[in-house]
Amino acid sequence: MARTVVDLANERKKCDFDVEELTNYIDGDAISTHKRRQLENKVLSVKELFDDVPEEYLSHKEKYENAIRKSVLMYKVLEEIKDPNETEMQNARTFFRSLLPFAIFKDNSPFSLHYSMFVPAIIAQANDEQKKYWLKRAMNTEIIGTYAQTELGHGTFIRGLETTATYDVETEEFVLHSPTLTAYKWWPGSLAHTANYCVVMAQLNIKGKNYGIQPFMVQLRDENTHMPLSGIKLGEIGAKLGFNTVNNGFLGFDQHRIPRDRMLMKNAQVSKDGVFTRKTDSKLTYGTMVYVRVMIVNSMANHLARSVTIAVRYSAVRKQSQINTDQPEVQVMDFLTQQHKLFVAIASSHAIRITAAWLWDKYEKVTKDMEAGKSDGLPELHALACCLKAVSSADASDMVITCSRACGGHGYILSSNLPQIYGLIAAACIYEGENTVLLLQTARSLVKAWEQNARGEKLSSTVSYIADTHPFGKWENSVEGIIKGFERVAACKLSAAVSTRNQYLKSGLSPEESWNMTSVQLVAVSEAHCRALILSTYKAEVDRKAQHLSDPLKRVMYQLVELYATYWSLQKLGDLLLYTSMSESDVQQLRQNYESLLLKIRPNAVGLVDGFDFRDEILNSTLGAYDGRVYERLMEEALKSPLNAEPVNRSFHQYLKPFMQGKL
Amino acid sequence: MARTVVDLANERKKCDFDVEELTNYIDGDAISTHKRRQLENKVLSVKELFDDVPEEYLSHKEKYENAIRKSVLMYKVLEEIKDPNETEMQNARTFFRSLLPFAIFKDNSPFSLHYSMFVPAIIAQANDEQKKYWLKRAMNTEIIGTYAQTELGHGTFIRGLETTATYDVETEEFVLHSPTLTAYKWWPGSLAHTANYCVVMAQLNIKGKNYGIQPFMVQLRDENTHMPLSGIKLGEIGAKLGFNTVNNGFLGFDQHRIPRDRMLMKNAQVSKDGVFTRKTDSKLTYGTMVYVRVMIVNSMANHLARSVTIAVRYSAVRKQSQINTDQPEVQVMDFLTQQHKLFVAIASSHAIRITAAWLWDKYEKVTKDMEAGKSDGLPELHALACCLKAVSSADASDMVITCSRACGGHGYILSSNLPQIYGLIAAACIYEGENTVLLLQTARSLVKAWEQNARGEKLSSTVSYIADTHPFGKWENSVEGIIKGFERVAACKLSAAVSTRNQYLKSGLSPEESWNMTSVQLVAVSEAHCRALILSTYKAEVDRKAQHLSDPLKRVMYQLVELYATYWSLQKLGDLLLYTSMSESDVQQLRQNYESLLLKIRPNAVGLVDGFDFRDEILNSTLGAYDGRVYERLMEEALKSPLNAEPVNRSFHQYLKPFMQGKL
Repeated sequence: MARTVVDLANERKKCDFDVEELTNYIDGDAISTHKRRQLENKVLSVKELFDDVPEEYLSHKEKYENAIRKSVLMYKVLEEIKDPNETEMQNARTFFRSLLPFAIFKDNSPFSLHYSMFVPAIIAQANDEQKKYWLKRAMNTEIIGTYAQTELGHGTFIRGLETTATYDVETEEFVLHSPTLTAYKWWPGSLAHTANYCVVMAQLNIKGKNYGIQPFMVQLRDENTHMPLSGIKLGEIGAKLGFNTVNNGFLGFDQHRIPRDRMLMKNAQVSKDGVFTRKTDSKLTYGTMVYVRVMIVNSMANHLARSVTIAVRYSAVRKQSQINTDQPEVQVMDFLTQQHKLFVAIASSHAIRITAAWLWDKYEKVTKDMEAGKSDGLPELHALACCLKAVSSADASDMVITCSRACGGHGYILSSNLPQIYGLIAAACIYEGENTVLLLQTARSLVKAWEQNARGEKLSSTVSYIADTHPFGKWENSVEGIIKGFERVAACKLSAAVSTRNQYLKSGLSPEESWNMTSVQLVAVSEAHCRALILSTYKAEVDRKAQHLSDPLKRVMYQLVELYATYWSLQKLGDLLLYTSMSESDVQQLRQNYESLLLKIRPNAVGLVDGFDFRDEILNSTLGAYDGRVYERLMEEALKSPLNAEPVNRSFHQYLKPFMQGKL
Repeated sequence: MARTVVDLANERKKCDFDVEELTNYIDGDAISTHKRRQLENKVLSVKELFDDVPEEYLSHKEKYENAIRKSVLMYKVLEEIKDPNETEMQNARTFFRSLLPFAIFKDNSPFSLHYSMFVPAIIAQANDEQKKYWLKRAMNTEIIGTYAQTELGHGTFIRGLETTATYDVETEEFVLHSPTLTAYKWWPGSLAHTANYCVVMAQLNIKGKNYGIQPFMVQLRDENTHMPLSGIKLGEIGAKLGFNTVNNGFLGFDQHRIPRDRMLMKNAQVSKDGVFTRKTDSKLTYGTMVYVRVMIVNSMANHLARSVTIAVRYSAVRKQSQINTDQPEVQVMDFLTQQHKLFVAIASSHAIRITAAWLWDKYEKVTKDMEAGKSDGLPELHALACCLKAVSSADASDMVITCSRACGGHGYILSSNLPQIYGLIAAACIYEGENTVLLLQTARSLVKAWEQNARGEKLSSTVSYIADTHPFGKWENSVEGIIKGFERVAACKLSAAVSTRNQYLKSGLSPEESWNMTSVQLVAVSEAHCRALILSTYKAEVDRKAQHLSDPLKRVMYQLVELYATYWSLQKLGDLLLYTSMSESDVQQLRQNYESLLLKIRPNAVGLVDGFDFRDEILNSTLGAYDGRVYERLMEEALKSPLNAEPVNRSFHQYLKPFMQGKL
């Protein structure tokens, strides 16, 4: 139907900035865009990486087998196309930071933990000799590995892990054991039927004394037969909301013995005769956690951008109801309520991506400092990564749901890909630190900063607003004014939470109980801090880049910043009214600004999502393809359902007919 | 592991009210509890209704075939156990209002539209002669039917439907036709491969003139072979986030002819020679829509109660971290943040159930009035049903997500059943009127009421607060004070929205464009109205019932009302600060009240969810069973995955091994 294509073409004509310029801005520069497209062209031209029957129609077992088929093929392709000027690891990372795995698997590859956790664990925790041996095997994929920490009964609280590694001085071996059912390792991707090696975190015991959690390289399966080794119980944990092709597994040990040199000994060592020594600063392992969280923040921006691309294009094609009764049905994107649902998601994707990049720079700086023996930037970095991971995943989750519902019933169909993207984002709210736990970690550092300030100590830059004791002054409905307002809110909420905690302390509760009783407020403090941070970072980075942009693009980038700031100030009115000088007429003005910003952005909406430059294969969506052939694709995909291969299903003869004829 | 059972047993000892009394209160009375349990006992004792291999491991096609197998069995059981003192329809309704289908299918039965839509459509739209014939066939399940209105390109906007039924005077037939791809019927459950009859809504054309949307009884498939009839194209729409066993389908017509008497002629008629007459008030069909929405509100309460039962029991069993560092790990329910996530969901389930019952009474009264020719209660009822459906489904959606995340990673596993319950609730946010559209319908009636009030006319009781012109007076942190506050907020937001619309009108926009520009505010007005309504209804109904309750149960029921009111006042601080006399110290007091309410409810939390009295089969969850054997069940269910039947998957030999050995 040419009609639908015409609607999108018209939208593209209305766009008043250069979409390619936006794409280059998002990628970093034109060269990066070019490189990314080259990589995408190469990988996506391999037709065998795509399914005839969409994954969602397969059984759970078939999904896995198909994912293995595609994974080995994908790695072969990666091998062929890798950039000889970069290291193996850099090549792998370029690929995994791209969104290509989501084009091929929707739900990710069963090998994904090999590069994202197993290899980094070797790099971070093996000594030089171990690294030389294991890294080579891993990078050549002679072995496939994963990383096992979480247990069936234990997640966040690392000290509570039950798996033991007991050193036997006689045989110079560690005995790995799962003393209870809750001690079973549970969740690692690839663990169930794919990986044959695994870095296992276990409680180290030597001669009856506990030396905390240490990493061990454990062979899980025979390299030739793939049978689990004796003393090792392996399996998969079952179907999940998402990540079903990732092959999450469980692992139990029954007095399983491994040689002494299988403990990864970069940071701590056990000698032949069972003497434990700790060498390096354990803070270094913090670095990996921060690294993973920066990656998550960035991926939230990407998944959100995919979602909103789908929803905006669909909203330009879909027509429904009239606004003026004498005119034809309108594109649903013309409804202000639809603009309200979608445009903030475009802005949020930019805000989150930009903040992730800023955090990455901070991470690199701190890592360099630490290599030079200076680790004082780490606590702030850790606190930032915690709250940014939590807030970006929570926002992305809310917004992908909104995008999905903005597509009505069609957003509920798997061929739209919105439910699967939701599944990926929902997981990010709980893995690598459950969001509430993370926000409370940031809160701890904020309370510390509050106490430092009370003692007159200097604060690091991201919390310096705590020290601002000026009266708030007149409220201003500008982005700067809103940022100032959000910082004041964060400071006042922090102060209120500290005083609540002090009241509980005075009433006789222990410090820990007082902290717990204040924790609902503390979570809100962390969120407020994070909102102020994202807002000011987003604004500052656009300011910094704006000089290099053409006027039309600059204008629309600033509209998004303003929309984002205005949206959040309207969402958080209660706090702003409580802690700043905002008045009722300011609120009315903000609402009006918001409504008029939606109208300004409307003609550029399709251009803005085109600027994300997602290939159709990466969107993987009937509703979001570049050409807007929404209805044709919905029907084409439906017809791929194996149920549609036969006009009459066999269950009619077996069950339905006898039932309707009363013969059952 | 006895340990986990002990934790739940201890919780039950702490409970200070009679759980059975709560169950009777929820069911209505002790007799209703007894009847429900009898029905459950009978159905759930049929072992063949349960799967050896959980549904989530089957392919899409196998899921359907298995659901048909179970459906015919379930109907046979229903036939055997039906209450001879009730009508067929009442018996069917008792069953479908119960949660038994969710015990058997998780995702509902492919027959579910037969009783929920097909039969009611016959009752509402067939004339007496037609009813006599079709109702008998339908109630005997000689035929299985569904109801088709929505099209691939058309949902909410009924007038936009494209399917035509053109009367041919020569042959006295209607010619059904789908002029475009977007005209295909799309979504009806059961339509794809199950139903052989369908009530189809189509544009009636006679001699070139359009007579609007009318209902037609269409045979889809041969009763003997089940082959689609000539001129009828049928299939399924593909995999979805949920409802995958419901067999949603598409239906296209290619000049398909049906006899004249297949138009359902209760409300409108076409004579042999093509004369169209309209008999009854078309408002009657509104009644069915309202009925369906009342049912949805009630089901939201049920699904939410299931979710929070699972999450609360899990939170009593799960231990993590310490509060005091010298003590062992604590039940996660001891964290205030966890109580904050869960307890409001318990209260919300009560609030929504009670409001649904209140709406049901109103519906019955209005229906009776209408039969007596008095239809003036309908608009208010319609407006109430719209906003309650929207707000209850949106709240239930947010809260089931929170319950799910409160279970950490395990809430992401399908055996927890939380992802599937989310799927059911998410659908309710879009079907039977997408939520934003519904809120705007309520807004229209609120604006009308505002205008009536301005003209000095009397308002109906649920909007009478609009007429209250007293100064707000002193804010009070009581439930009554909060209700008063919420009503004032709704009135002020309505007034602000009306004045915004008037501004847009003055600026030269058309009434429709002005409405559109105000629509984001109008949606918020509707929500505010609905919050005030639920709060006051919940409070009033508990007041009314409280006299019959024992003191301990009365106390805890009022704690939930207070928690619910306090929670929402803290969520909507901005509005309350803007439009009432609430001060910063009131807010602090509210926060403290909220924290102390959580503590008061904590010891009764397990008792409160036990009071919902869900059988384990109806919860269908590894995390929520009555005995709390969480970890054992997680492992038992995981072991049912067909992938776990073999230690080595065949994909190792086919792909993995050659890949790792570099031979690919």
